[in-house]
Amino acid sequence: MPQLALLYGRAWAALFGQLRRPPRAVCIQMVHSRSQVAEAVLTSQQKPHQEKSNFIIKTPKGTRDLSPQQMVVREKILDMVVSCFKRHGAKGLDTPAFELKEMLTEKYGEDSGLIYDLKDQGGELLSLRYDLTVPFARYLAMNKLKKMKRYHVGKVWRRESPTIVQGRYREFCQCDFDIAGQFDPMIPDAECLKIICEILSGLQLGDFLIKISWKDVRHEMVAKKGLAPEVADQIGDYVQCHGGVSLVEQMFQDPRLSQNKQALEGLGDLKLLFEYLTLFGIAEKISFDLSLARGLDYYTGVIYEAVLLQTPAQAEEEPLNVGSVAAGGRYDGLVGMFDPKGHKVPCVGLSIGVERIFSIVEQRMKTFGEKVRTTETQVFVATPQKNFLQERLKLIAELWDAGIKAELLYKNNPKLLTQLHYCENTGIPLVVIIGEQELKEGVIKLRLVASREEVAIKRENLVAEIQKRLSES
Amino acid sequence: MPQLALLYGRAWAALFGQLRRPPRAVCIQMVHSRSQVAEAVLTSQQKPHQEKSNFIIKTPKGTRDLSPQQMVVREKILDMVVSCFKRHGAKGLDTPAFELKEMLTEKYGEDSGLIYDLKDQGGELLSLRYDLTVPFARYLAMNKLKKMKRYHVGKVWRRESPTIVQGRYREFCQCDFDIAGQFDPMIPDAECLKIICEILSGLQLGDFLIKISWKDVRHEMVAKKGLAPEVADQIGDYVQCHGGVSLVEQMFQDPRLSQNKQALEGLGDLKLLFEYLTLFGIAEKISFDLSLARGLDYYTGVIYEAVLLQTPAQAEEEPLNVGSVAAGGRYDGLVGMFDPKGHKVPCVGLSIGVERIFSIVEQRMKTFGEKVRTTETQVFVATPQKNFLQERLKLIAELWDAGIKAELLYKNNPKLLTQLHYCENTGIPLVVIIGEQELKEGVIKLRLVASREEVAIKRENLVAEIQKRLSES
Repeated sequence: MPQLALLYGRAWAALFGQLRRPPRAVCIQMVHSRSQVAEAVLTSQQKPHQEKSNFIIKTPKGTRDLSPQQMVVREKILDMVVSCFKRHGAKGLDTPAFELKEMLTEKYGEDSGLIYDLKDQGGELLSLRYDLTVPFARYLAMNKLKKMKRYHVGKVWRRESPTIVQGRYREFCQCDFDIAGQFDPMIPDAECLKIICEILSGLQLGDFLIKISWKDVRHEMVAKKGLAPEVADQIGDYVQCHGGVSLVEQMFQDPRLSQNKQALEGLGDLKLLFEYLTLFGIAEKISFDLSLARGLDYYTGVIYEAVLLQTPAQAEEEPLNVGSVAAGGRYDGLVGMFDPKGHKVPCVGLSIGVERIFSIVEQRMKTFGEKVRTTETQVFVATPQKNFLQERLKLIAELWDAGIKAELLYKNNPKLLTQLHYCENTGIPLVVIIGEQELKEGVIKLRLVASREEVAIKRENLVAEIQKRLSES
Repeated sequence: MPQLALLYGRAWAALFGQLRRPPRAVCIQMVHSRSQVAEAVLTSQQKPHQEKSNFIIKTPKGTRDLSPQQMVVREKILDMVVSCFKRHGAKGLDTPAFELKEMLTEKYGEDSGLIYDLKDQGGELLSLRYDLTVPFARYLAMNKLKKMKRYHVGKVWRRESPTIVQGRYREFCQCDFDIAGQFDPMIPDAECLKIICEILSGLQLGDFLIKISWKDVRHEMVAKKGLAPEVADQIGDYVQCHGGVSLVEQMFQDPRLSQNKQALEGLGDLKLLFEYLTLFGIAEKISFDLSLARGLDYYTGVIYEAVLLQTPAQAEEEPLNVGSVAAGGRYDGLVGMFDPKGHKVPCVGLSIGVERIFSIVEQRMKTFGEKVRTTETQVFVATPQKNFLQERLKLIAELWDAGIKAELLYKNNPKLLTQLHYCENTGIPLVVIIGEQELKEGVIKLRLVASREEVAIKRENLVAEIQKRLSES
């Protein structure tokens, strides 16, 4: 994973700046009663003979804005995740934020109550998507696609009770990778687990473990279907166990299990899976664990969940309950639910819990108190002189046209010190200074903000000189 | 704009492949009646004594999935737009897909009926955002920010009658750039127009023109407020005119206008704006045009709209009504609507109509029938031998771990021809071939798909050799 590591090495250090969240709600006083807004407020909080009223300006419960600082962190993390998905040959896909309500029906079991419905304003009944998996299955069925390897990064919405401290929101971002199609057993499943390992290692979140269970095996054993109660009780012991290849081997040889056809098949596949995981060099990251139970209805076969074993710098940080940071599994029946003849398209996939990863990285940045740049500006155009706006505007247009990221202050006559402070505060590395003297001599002063060194450059060489310096840094 | 041009030169040619849209709706037959889904359908289409029913699997009206081909085009265009925003020093920002309903009230005038409301499921009343401007103003007021230069790329939703052929959807992507803050007049306004020019030139969509109007001037003249009817009629002539600096100069000197204080101020600013546009080298792209009227309520001062003068290769293509491809203006009052004391934060901004740009580029690609790669896979791992899955898995993990984008077929024993065809069909440039002979000799065969040339490489040098070839290509 050198790509991730490289990015990490180069850009990560700059990332760990202090993240200050904007106040989540600001209570303000309404003076100009802007009819409807004010009216809605007045209706609920009416006080006689008083025109002013309090009203809260905020984002909806369980949602939040992402500040520029947060956006920088998010962009870096999503870039790493998507580049991993692309490394594994996935295509991009996007689906609408809402689906016909009936498309989501019967897919989420008990969780269905958490789906956001749209108001009936005439026309179709619509719901906000609850995950990216069901829209993917709908897409496959609708386009009669029998195989596809796709990734999808997008928001989903769930009406959960938000516990903000744990990083759970009603609107959150999901990053999904899925492989649809009929293939030889366990090869795509193993690749999904490999991808989770690559992403979690690449993000350097600390040690992690992926717990694997098997829906059918678990069902046979725990729900006791088709097993004599006393056998089930004995087998129930395995639910307490967890381990790797050796545990699978042990269960495989247990006659109480080998007598049950469905459980036996599941265990055979599981053994194959561990073979492939060993070839991928990740077997020691995976633990078979029947106590794991994933909530969603549509899973069949293998299911998994990645958990962090510790926060990255646990000693220095407050403990943070982050829960699972990735999860997924096989869902061979979902596409068939959309198909007229119930034709199945076997699928396996994973979802990276990026919101939780954002929380961890933000907390880490807070702890280490480093600064993060929220713009990418390379050059600032300044002047010590009054009435030099025209020269500054001509100059900056030249830089923009050459593809150079440049800013100036939107003032006719800014003070030089104000301009230089702006560069130091926002981390702009280069300043181009133009004044009467420079204009007369046909030069431009180039100032390196870090060293405060200044060099004179011929006006006509400016763009080339800047591009040279930027490519070297 | 060499950055855009460079990207264009390098990646654009590859982009213009045939774009086949997936069928928008597939009529399927329901066999397994999946209770609720089927029930909903049966209720509306009930036929006696018949268990099967037709039901349509589709996306909601006015929305669509974006196929991998479309996603590639979209990604390239959005990259160009965002890199321009960053070149001008903008920070990223994100806001929730929905807002408290009252936040959107009184912002959109007649268009308010097009807002999507969420169903009241207990708790707050919510609406999907209608644009990115109102959430930005809400963000500024909520966080008491007096200035900010930000960009925002995101979906917005409007319950319009969709006319799909014209590229109008109920869910669509907006790319906004805005400058908030009290600055010297017309400098940020001129930068917004410069940005529109950079983006439209960079995307090479053909010739374009930006029409400018002035809300106050227009109001004074057209709505005749404060003007004697006969004066208004005379001035009304200007509504027919359009032009650049000279027209502004002419109006400026007209005593009928210079007697009206508000109109005069507007014209003075307009003259200043044209001075800056000349310094930016874009004055000839801008036309003052009082007939332009933007619909949204919140605009004040300058308003503008960019239109394409012709489609890129008009001769070869069917005419496409694309309407405006960018628009924006000044809205000095919007933030104050959220502020308790009505404190204003002057703002000016722009929105790129990327959906229309997508339509144009897609149509162009259709016309030229070029192929677009939907994956970025660099290396395919193949074998001519049976029972070589283990070797292939070990090898591909090595490539992935080195950051190389690699794929294999998920089959135990695929045919070599099938594997090579897969590479040719999907545009993978390199194939690594491992068989018994190679294994014995400690080498790997590297095949260049384009030339079908094959070279043997020592197993231990494989990753370095591939990285060298990829960096050279």
